[in-house]
Amino acid sequence: MNNFTYDIKTKVYFGKGQISHLGEETALYGKKALLVYGGGSIKKNGLYEEAMKEFKNHQIEVVELSGVEPNPRIETVRKGVELCRKHNIDVIVAIGGGSTIDCAKVISGSVSYDKDPWDIVLDASKVTSCLPILTVLTLAATGSEMDAVAVISDMSKNEKWGCGHPGFRPVVSILDPTYTFSVSKYQTACGTADIMSHIMESYFTNTEGFMQDRIAEGLLRTCIAYGLRAVKQPDDYEARANLMWTGSWAINDLLKLGKGCPWSVHPMEHELSAFYDITHGAGLAILTPYWMEYVLDETSVDKFVDFARNVWQVSPHLEDEYAIAKEGIKRLRDFFVAMGLPTTLHEVGINEEHFDIMAEKASKKLQGGYRNLTKEDVINIYKKAL
Amino acid sequence: MNNFTYDIKTKVYFGKGQISHLGEETALYGKKALLVYGGGSIKKNGLYEEAMKEFKNHQIEVVELSGVEPNPRIETVRKGVELCRKHNIDVIVAIGGGSTIDCAKVISGSVSYDKDPWDIVLDASKVTSCLPILTVLTLAATGSEMDAVAVISDMSKNEKWGCGHPGFRPVVSILDPTYTFSVSKYQTACGTADIMSHIMESYFTNTEGFMQDRIAEGLLRTCIAYGLRAVKQPDDYEARANLMWTGSWAINDLLKLGKGCPWSVHPMEHELSAFYDITHGAGLAILTPYWMEYVLDETSVDKFVDFARNVWQVSPHLEDEYAIAKEGIKRLRDFFVAMGLPTTLHEVGINEEHFDIMAEKASKKLQGGYRNLTKEDVINIYKKAL
Repeated sequence: MNNFTYDIKTKVYFGKGQISHLGEETALYGKKALLVYGGGSIKKNGLYEEAMKEFKNHQIEVVELSGVEPNPRIETVRKGVELCRKHNIDVIVAIGGGSTIDCAKVISGSVSYDKDPWDIVLDASKVTSCLPILTVLTLAATGSEMDAVAVISDMSKNEKWGCGHPGFRPVVSILDPTYTFSVSKYQTACGTADIMSHIMESYFTNTEGFMQDRIAEGLLRTCIAYGLRAVKQPDDYEARANLMWTGSWAINDLLKLGKGCPWSVHPMEHELSAFYDITHGAGLAILTPYWMEYVLDETSVDKFVDFARNVWQVSPHLEDEYAIAKEGIKRLRDFFVAMGLPTTLHEVGINEEHFDIMAEKASKKLQGGYRNLTKEDVINIYKKAL
Repeated sequence: MNNFTYDIKTKVYFGKGQISHLGEETALYGKKALLVYGGGSIKKNGLYEEAMKEFKNHQIEVVELSGVEPNPRIETVRKGVELCRKHNIDVIVAIGGGSTIDCAKVISGSVSYDKDPWDIVLDASKVTSCLPILTVLTLAATGSEMDAVAVISDMSKNEKWGCGHPGFRPVVSILDPTYTFSVSKYQTACGTADIMSHIMESYFTNTEGFMQDRIAEGLLRTCIAYGLRAVKQPDDYEARANLMWTGSWAINDLLKLGKGCPWSVHPMEHELSAFYDITHGAGLAILTPYWMEYVLDETSVDKFVDFARNVWQVSPHLEDEYAIAKEGIKRLRDFFVAMGLPTTLHEVGINEEHFDIMAEKASKKLQGGYRNLTKEDVINIYKKAL
């Protein structure tokens, strides 16, 4: 286990009706809030109204930034920064999924930065201060509600980058699983795949971290137990609650501290969504099993046996360790299929056209990870996934 | 899953040499520190000197309270409170195991309370403010370094009580596994049993919490993988590191939030140490398997099957669920034996003499838990454990 500093100060209100804490908590951080949200579904389900009531009851003045995109755009960040400056905003409240929260994070760190926020996306060490962020989560997927990372796209350049800063971590997050009842079957499946990928990115590393890996396996088992249940019965509270809380712990740092390294599949997927704007979780579901098959060899087989045995309860009585490892990978793919996710790039409209440039960009982020993958390796994995 | 608020703000510096952060972190909270420690082993292993150097380098004035007992006494708390008042202490630094940290906690909450600190032990809601607490941990066991609970004894009355307050949670804890290399085999085993008991207390509850239970199983597996290794090879860093970090997560609240209820075995054990001053972990190791056998019935057998299968990898091919459940309990007892722990009360010098009064007191704390145990139930469990 490597040395690390654990410092996760997000306060989480978890459960039905916890929105009742939004006003009092926001008021602790200021009187003028920027409310950030997406396409307006929160106006349909009553959440917008509830939030506004909370703000009103605590005399909080609200400025709105709506229309944050899935795969949030730098243009929207810029708009938010301007609003914060114009209205002297004290605190940012993001209501939505990871895209909305990520957008809020980069806004929060860019208000005091006098150049373009895209600089922050490329190098978050330029952040000098952040406005505090509160979140109300409506989708179990990215874990942005409890982590210090944001992913922002510039579609004009086909660029999608992740950046992180301690000040990005929300000070308060409200996690009410009932807000995810209305998430579609497909988005529920994509969110579950995203959560599972976060866990696996911290699981497949080269540094020993027995405890972290056992927790990771427990979280993966939770996704497996409840992912399909939530797809089949959207208002299953236990399923939604377990997925939501697992989503936060998948990526809030606990799993990686002491053993982390650069991720493996996310960089390859980010190129897919940067070029094709596909749903991130779908891209991960497609690529992950192919990546696993590609890196399975004598140096990794023991880890894949752990994965198969401890996560998927694969029998130890198969003919050899490779059979066990492959059965684990097969079960992962089967699970994604059962949830209704795609398993090939063709299914989401991607062909070989941009493989070269996508692989070129992805491979730069893949050095020092579980396995060093070259541009050619990435092209091979993309081709297998076609 | 029940509603809950998660709020664990302790910053943890984990790993070799992290003491180098003690001065800078203490200085954030003030200029005058009360240094609390135990019997002086920190003077032998150089830790005292390292800490004093840190304080000196950051111009922190130090007042010392040494000699905190295992099963810390209210008399020592009273002494600490007087020192804090006399010297206008800003911040408390506890260096040691759970006893030292627990003592520091009740001191921290009693300085601003004008009556006897024992009132706080009996009812922590009387706390109006706490001095900030930093800890340097030297024993993996109680988890006090990251939780909000303290256990204090008044041996003049054979009383041992736990109390909790949000202000008791350390603001910073330094966890350097090398500080536990010198912990004796027996104390290592007792500490491991204590950690496992904390996990099991949150595992055996009546509220569904699938994710929490899977994490709990992973933490138990970590104790099993490394407890014996640390006993056999005291300077095994991975073993000490895994036990130390697991000890914090066993009880910092994550496992219980959403599903917690009053604990089962701790109240029965607290009476043993209150009357006989035995090591807490040893008492837990003795009682836990007997408690499990006592509460195993048709209403609990499924949970014990989970425990056997997921924690101990008991084969599903035994004749029936009770056989699987019992095999899990047997493996737990065998594990304690392998670590050199006692399995009967006689071995630690306890006979029937005080069973009546101990059971009377314990049973009052056992209502609303996994199983409601009457005084007679507790006497029966004590008798089986003789």
